[in-house]
Amino acid sequence: MGTSSAALERALAFVDERESDVHAFACLDRVGASAAAAAVDGSGDALPLRGYVLGVKDVFDTADLPTEYGCAVYAGHRPRADAAAVAQLRNAGAVCLGKTVTAELALFQPGPTRNPWRLTHTPGGSSSGSAAAVAAGMVDVAVGTQTAGSVIRPASFCGVWGFKPTYGRVSIAGLKIVSPSLDTVGWFAPSADGIDAVRVALTGEPARPEPVAPRIGLARTGAWESADPDCRAAVEDAAAHARAAGASVVELTLPAPIEQLIADQPVVQAYEAARSLAYERTWRAGDLSDNLRQILDWGAAIPTAQYLRVRAHTAQAGAWAEALFDDVDVVLTPAAIGEAPEGLASTGDPLFARLWTLLGLPAVSVPGLVGDTGLPIGVQLVARSGADGLLVAWAEWLGRLLA
Amino acid sequence: MGTSSAALERALAFVDERESDVHAFACLDRVGASAAAAAVDGSGDALPLRGYVLGVKDVFDTADLPTEYGCAVYAGHRPRADAAAVAQLRNAGAVCLGKTVTAELALFQPGPTRNPWRLTHTPGGSSSGSAAAVAAGMVDVAVGTQTAGSVIRPASFCGVWGFKPTYGRVSIAGLKIVSPSLDTVGWFAPSADGIDAVRVALTGEPARPEPVAPRIGLARTGAWESADPDCRAAVEDAAAHARAAGASVVELTLPAPIEQLIADQPVVQAYEAARSLAYERTWRAGDLSDNLRQILDWGAAIPTAQYLRVRAHTAQAGAWAEALFDDVDVVLTPAAIGEAPEGLASTGDPLFARLWTLLGLPAVSVPGLVGDTGLPIGVQLVARSGADGLLVAWAEWLGRLLA
Repeated sequence: MGTSSAALERALAFVDERESDVHAFACLDRVGASAAAAAVDGSGDALPLRGYVLGVKDVFDTADLPTEYGCAVYAGHRPRADAAAVAQLRNAGAVCLGKTVTAELALFQPGPTRNPWRLTHTPGGSSSGSAAAVAAGMVDVAVGTQTAGSVIRPASFCGVWGFKPTYGRVSIAGLKIVSPSLDTVGWFAPSADGIDAVRVALTGEPARPEPVAPRIGLARTGAWESADPDCRAAVEDAAAHARAAGASVVELTLPAPIEQLIADQPVVQAYEAARSLAYERTWRAGDLSDNLRQILDWGAAIPTAQYLRVRAHTAQAGAWAEALFDDVDVVLTPAAIGEAPEGLASTGDPLFARLWTLLGLPAVSVPGLVGDTGLPIGVQLVARSGADGLLVAWAEWLGRLLA
Repeated sequence: MGTSSAALERALAFVDERESDVHAFACLDRVGASAAAAAVDGSGDALPLRGYVLGVKDVFDTADLPTEYGCAVYAGHRPRADAAAVAQLRNAGAVCLGKTVTAELALFQPGPTRNPWRLTHTPGGSSSGSAAAVAAGMVDVAVGTQTAGSVIRPASFCGVWGFKPTYGRVSIAGLKIVSPSLDTVGWFAPSADGIDAVRVALTGEPARPEPVAPRIGLARTGAWESADPDCRAAVEDAAAHARAAGASVVELTLPAPIEQLIADQPVVQAYEAARSLAYERTWRAGDLSDNLRQILDWGAAIPTAQYLRVRAHTAQAGAWAEALFDDVDVVLTPAAIGEAPEGLASTGDPLFARLWTLLGLPAVSVPGLVGDTGLPIGVQLVARSGADGLLVAWAEWLGRLLA
């Protein structure tokens, strides 16, 4: 990368051109970013993220910028500290250009962000602004969070790389926590380079190895028929490209206990959200959307015994999922159910991300393919717990075939 | 329980008598508590915590009270929302009397709290004020957090019941998060009744069954010689009482991989703390104690590969620990290394809590015994993951023998 000041200038040119249409930012900080870029460029330290302009989903606390969590309860809220991930990225030299739009409390009620590829379509969510800002060139990398499919789905809709590491590898301190057993910091970039640079900065793990063909298990899952034909075709295309390039591709039938997790994940998410957001639900219900209130009411009504059964089942399924990766390196599966749907009233369906989030496995949405109307369609790769760096390398190998 | 107003009056009489010596509170809210008590008493709802006055460790966010995390960085900080646990307890009818003193950022640098049993001695930490407030009768129950031994140790030092549920059972939303894979909400009460009432309100699980004798495994652990003679005698006494009352008591030799966790836990805690507190460490170091800075610097220097090895080892040890509970219901082991040490410069050693916290198992400190100088000594019982309600019942059975 070049200097941070040059990167910022480039980013701001895209902001000037696109932001009034895309609405990716909840808060833009030109002055602060400019000062930060000068400080990074003037630093004698070897800063691994020098030259990276960063967008931060507005569910991460920032000491110098408002943090509203996409929720009227938090209008004008200004935390005292940066969230852990924000501080780590700034310490590594990233220049924060602003906070990006999130769905309300990182759940489902959309903000104003539009899909840069077609403004009448959703960018996906809940990390809507982060995905859109990267897609529009307004930032080089952006952090988001995933509790169901809030990184993988918007990455697919916006045609950018989206990465969710193994659960627990990046600190959630300073996040607005919704479902503690699921909430995972993830991020977006236009290339595997950006994805890996952020991964190294946040996890302290080594850089990814050279791209190499993975052994691929194609998992259509029981949800396959819920995906649009062009989405299913994209996954088949990716498999065909990989096979043609010499990768082994086998059909993977997930055992029923793993398939069951697709239906289990919403139970865990809503049960935990209702308790984690007990204050908002009880004392500030008038400042929540109807949509959110309904989800929280449903979650509050889930019996604890049912939740505990699902948790116990998830733990068992995790052991079986581990065994999947004895024979394949990655699972190939849809990232979303199709192209970004028209309209801004919904952020789309996280169906194909749910089970992998519940299992806590690392996942990536690889861009390159397009759907019937010309909008991007990502394909999702999932790897064994802890194989985050390898996953980026495998995804990079596949991404080169699709680009 | 009677009315909340009567409970508050009783509590305030102890505050008037003891607080100027004990310094359990970071912030007292007589006016708010009085209004809340009247509201609870006037409510037509069946509120399970009616009649309970609550203390809240000052690492839980509160919308109506300052929240300073025991740290100069957060002087005068006032969050927008109540932490999940605080909202859940208030919704259940608990009346919050104030925020209790915490060690700096829930780590090791003590606040001003003194041990109610002997003011020249530490109450333990980091949940110092919560344990002391319960011991002095100033609240009926108090919440704290445990990352190493921050509930079990102060409960032992202050002669009250202290309970840490299974990891993940209570939402950590709205806590100042330090080590996300360890941080656990716990609580204190003068009896098993109070412990169980809070457990039911926070977890939604059923009330504990009738007290019954557990099958006990006495685990001295490799740390045994680090415990004071009177502490070791207390554990042997508890075992003898249980045996005399008809319980089966066997000697339990922990496998080496489980013993290893005693040394592993500080690595996990410090590694994660350095990253979770990256903002404070980098940007506000001048507002931290030397003690905290040193711990964070040590944590920052721990190689990620070492941390990941420890995490992998912990996962394996967890499977072995699960097998321990095929033959015994509870592990009996010291709660601390002895009586509360003299002086206020240290909160004492969490040695005997570390491994069980790392495993995420439910644990309780049962009061009733005393050390050589007449200060309380608790004994710790640990149960299988998820056996929280049973653990309270087993502990209650033992507690009646020790009282």
